[in-house]
Amino acid sequence: MSVFCKLSLGAELRSFVLKFFNFPNGRQTLTGQNTSNRRRRRKSRQAPSLSNIVNAPDVRDIPAYDLVRAEGVEKIDAISMDILENTGIEFRDEIATTAWRAVDAEVDGTRVRIPRELIREKVSLAPTVFTQHARNPERSVKIGARHMVFSPIYGSPYVRTLDGERRYARLEDFESFVKLAYLSPALNHSGGTVCEPTDVPVAERHLDMLYAHMRLSDKPFMGGVTSPERAQDCLAMCRILFGKDFLNNHTVMTSLLNCNSPLVWDESMLSVIRVYAAANQACIISPFIMQGANTPVTTAGAFALLNAEALAGIAYAQMIRPGAPVIYGATLSTVSMQTGSPMYGTAETQQLTFLTGQMARHYGLPMRTGGMRTGSKTVDAQAAYESLQTMLPALLAGGNFFLHAAGWLESGLSACFAKFTMDADQLIVLQRLAGALDLSDDAFAASATNEVGPGGHFFGSNHTLQHYRDIFFSPETADQTTYEDWQENGSVDACVRASQLAAARLESYQAPSLDEATDDALREFIARRKGEIQGGDACLANHHP
Amino acid sequence: MSVFCKLSLGAELRSFVLKFFNFPNGRQTLTGQNTSNRRRRRKSRQAPSLSNIVNAPDVRDIPAYDLVRAEGVEKIDAISMDILENTGIEFRDEIATTAWRAVDAEVDGTRVRIPRELIREKVSLAPTVFTQHARNPERSVKIGARHMVFSPIYGSPYVRTLDGERRYARLEDFESFVKLAYLSPALNHSGGTVCEPTDVPVAERHLDMLYAHMRLSDKPFMGGVTSPERAQDCLAMCRILFGKDFLNNHTVMTSLLNCNSPLVWDESMLSVIRVYAAANQACIISPFIMQGANTPVTTAGAFALLNAEALAGIAYAQMIRPGAPVIYGATLSTVSMQTGSPMYGTAETQQLTFLTGQMARHYGLPMRTGGMRTGSKTVDAQAAYESLQTMLPALLAGGNFFLHAAGWLESGLSACFAKFTMDADQLIVLQRLAGALDLSDDAFAASATNEVGPGGHFFGSNHTLQHYRDIFFSPETADQTTYEDWQENGSVDACVRASQLAAARLESYQAPSLDEATDDALREFIARRKGEIQGGDACLANHHP
Repeated sequence: MSVFCKLSLGAELRSFVLKFFNFPNGRQTLTGQNTSNRRRRRKSRQAPSLSNIVNAPDVRDIPAYDLVRAEGVEKIDAISMDILENTGIEFRDEIATTAWRAVDAEVDGTRVRIPRELIREKVSLAPTVFTQHARNPERSVKIGARHMVFSPIYGSPYVRTLDGERRYARLEDFESFVKLAYLSPALNHSGGTVCEPTDVPVAERHLDMLYAHMRLSDKPFMGGVTSPERAQDCLAMCRILFGKDFLNNHTVMTSLLNCNSPLVWDESMLSVIRVYAAANQACIISPFIMQGANTPVTTAGAFALLNAEALAGIAYAQMIRPGAPVIYGATLSTVSMQTGSPMYGTAETQQLTFLTGQMARHYGLPMRTGGMRTGSKTVDAQAAYESLQTMLPALLAGGNFFLHAAGWLESGLSACFAKFTMDADQLIVLQRLAGALDLSDDAFAASATNEVGPGGHFFGSNHTLQHYRDIFFSPETADQTTYEDWQENGSVDACVRASQLAAARLESYQAPSLDEATDDALREFIARRKGEIQGGDACLANHHP
Repeated sequence: MSVFCKLSLGAELRSFVLKFFNFPNGRQTLTGQNTSNRRRRRKSRQAPSLSNIVNAPDVRDIPAYDLVRAEGVEKIDAISMDILENTGIEFRDEIATTAWRAVDAEVDGTRVRIPRELIREKVSLAPTVFTQHARNPERSVKIGARHMVFSPIYGSPYVRTLDGERRYARLEDFESFVKLAYLSPALNHSGGTVCEPTDVPVAERHLDMLYAHMRLSDKPFMGGVTSPERAQDCLAMCRILFGKDFLNNHTVMTSLLNCNSPLVWDESMLSVIRVYAAANQACIISPFIMQGANTPVTTAGAFALLNAEALAGIAYAQMIRPGAPVIYGATLSTVSMQTGSPMYGTAETQQLTFLTGQMARHYGLPMRTGGMRTGSKTVDAQAAYESLQTMLPALLAGGNFFLHAAGWLESGLSACFAKFTMDADQLIVLQRLAGALDLSDDAFAASATNEVGPGGHFFGSNHTLQHYRDIFFSPETADQTTYEDWQENGSVDACVRASQLAAARLESYQAPSLDEATDDALREFIARRKGEIQGGDACLANHHP
């Protein structure tokens, strides 16, 4: 306290003296706290972490944020429909163009011009909310409406290891990310290609990746999208895991299908959409936006384009199987006009994010968004600023499926264990923000305020003792000690703490149980398919676009 | 490109190959970009920085976010009024209690119980929006309604120097922060005690601090609040700077007055409120909230309390001078139940922030909020996460006066030059988010989309060339190069880059011109007052609570 008095701090800081008090169990009072503070604080740090007791809601109880008025929504819709009607969109795939012709779209080679009535009719068939089942029914998630699903980083060729090394990702890294997501209360989805297992032949990766999700986690996951054959393999493995009949009427995979902006759906993506939609498996229909490069440089123009692309893809999925679950959204970045690199967390991506949410609600579709995305090459302040400038708007925009929600670094080129751990911590803050604000009489605590009265403190009040365990999440990766204690503990930054925490969690990991016969059947299937791939269709598979 | 093809990346990353293209002037096409990329990129980095061309709006054109429904607003208001009527609030100052008695509040010693009608009547006298004048009229700001004012960190005893050293702050540091704020397009306010100049005697600091704001900047500033005599000195200096008569009807200072929660307004604060309100100078009436310590642990209870405290203070200011400008808000943190330290950017402070905005609109008062606040001891990811978890909600909540908007580190104990520079960069992102979204036909770029068509790119389109300079702000402290270039440049993190940038900016600083006679008069006043303080009232001044 003496430091503060001597310095005669401004009023703003006076009350900071309070932070030198210590109350490890919430029952200690503010009296008699002098020289023994430091010793007590040290003791309290060994107590079991409160942050393990986490209430992290997966339903948004707060309103979604509307950026534009109803006229704006109408105008965006109208311009997107104009694009589809007049400019048209390419479906570079004969099966698709044939299907469009059959429903009276104007087809000219690969260019398809689609009347707005047709788009609206098809899009309206998609469900507003659907359930993605996990092998552990308690882990099943709803996608759409006010439900929120948080899924890890997707697609990085490199990893940033626990020692800070940057190297090509391996299957062991993939498995570690699956384990960390399994252990994280913030992530209710195991994800897909959480990193590229580059030590596995390309043609066999989808098998090993899906097996890792199935074996090491019991949370829902994504399917392979690099070829229709691989998507079929994923379906076959799901039939083993969930049972043959279950898949007919249940969605067990949510997979990522990107449009090549501007205005191209290619054969590779379309053929996978066909496999998954036909099997009632969910497709995230997601234009890959680099604003200014593959879209107009203005936000309105970029959004009208991505909206047209997403709606066309969704309409096509509904032509395959009416009512097939889809998710509407986009992968967003802004292109630096100085370096040509993608930028994250810009005002423009925030605007696009809010518009995505508003239009998703307009069309009654689940929304894909978000991600803790950054262009930073290391886990520094830039990484965190950009990640939250992306993720917080996504949450308030009303997002349903948050891809890249943890672990993203370096424009997605690296999956990072430390950042994964920190991002997951920050997700809990956002999930708690999304939860209901208690406005009951008890929460208003009028009697506690009256009882404590002017100049008192609330640490010892019954109301505090009744409630404090339910609230006040303290991220485990954040340091909440004094400067002196922090210095004594080695002056480490958040990245170092997060790496240590990730290592400790991986150490503590225990696999969820999996029926032995099912496991055997999965291994048998994988072995057989690997044999076939190595023997016969490896060449084809390896060279698939 | 070859790396990506070899790795057979998922669809999500395929388009990243685009980032290896280079277009320094926005006119280059995507063809013929192979081995010469690296050389060209290097060249482009020497081009003048686009980020100097900054459009950083200071008026919010997007909607404010309402967290609770109208019933919630009514209930909060009702409970706060109950607190003031039943529990009452302490005004530990005889002049104040006498005034309350005169308007028929129930006064019992220092405890004042105020009928809700009386509070409402007084609060309704405060202006919804007012102008704070700067000596350069172009730098004057409006506070309230949809106007946004961003003011630096306030009150730190320590600084984190450009070399990363942590030491007591000095007047030279204070001056450097004033210079940096002057140079920053993100900050339209010079602030107050941007750090404590500990090398100046306590009783004289307010003179040197105010002189630095007046001499080194032409942006608006805050006045001293540590005693009524010092507040009078600040008024006297403003009369010299702005002219005697100007002050009668113009607000030229916005100063920070904290309530000691729970429910205590002390003599020190009240006597300063009297000085400033009587002179029509603005008071930020701001309870200092450490949720769980000096408020109920629940958000609703904490908010009802802070609302009662703020309204009582505002009502008192209106009793001094009806219509005196005030700002409603609070200093927010959540107390860790593990260490007793304040935590920032928690879900609870976010809820309190949104409620502050909603109630400010309900009462028709300007809102103080925000700040890039963190408990981190270093400029790491924790610092950035917590800062944005605080600041982004504050922006969407509809904040008008953002204190601690740049430079805050270590629970406010340190003012950091690197963080100041990074925070200011991120503020521009937020200011641009707050700006109007252009939904004009031109912004929708339908003809550009049609002209480019499927599979093309927009770099060379006329629409892009016309618009790209207005948009796409790239923070100067962010690295947007490739991993290889970043490595070649020394693998430095954002903190190092920001320190370098701050140093370069300070090097480039040139003081705005100040009339010589005015400057002389200010120096003369300061010299005289320092003489008086050293001779006579120093003892009193030094020991003021």
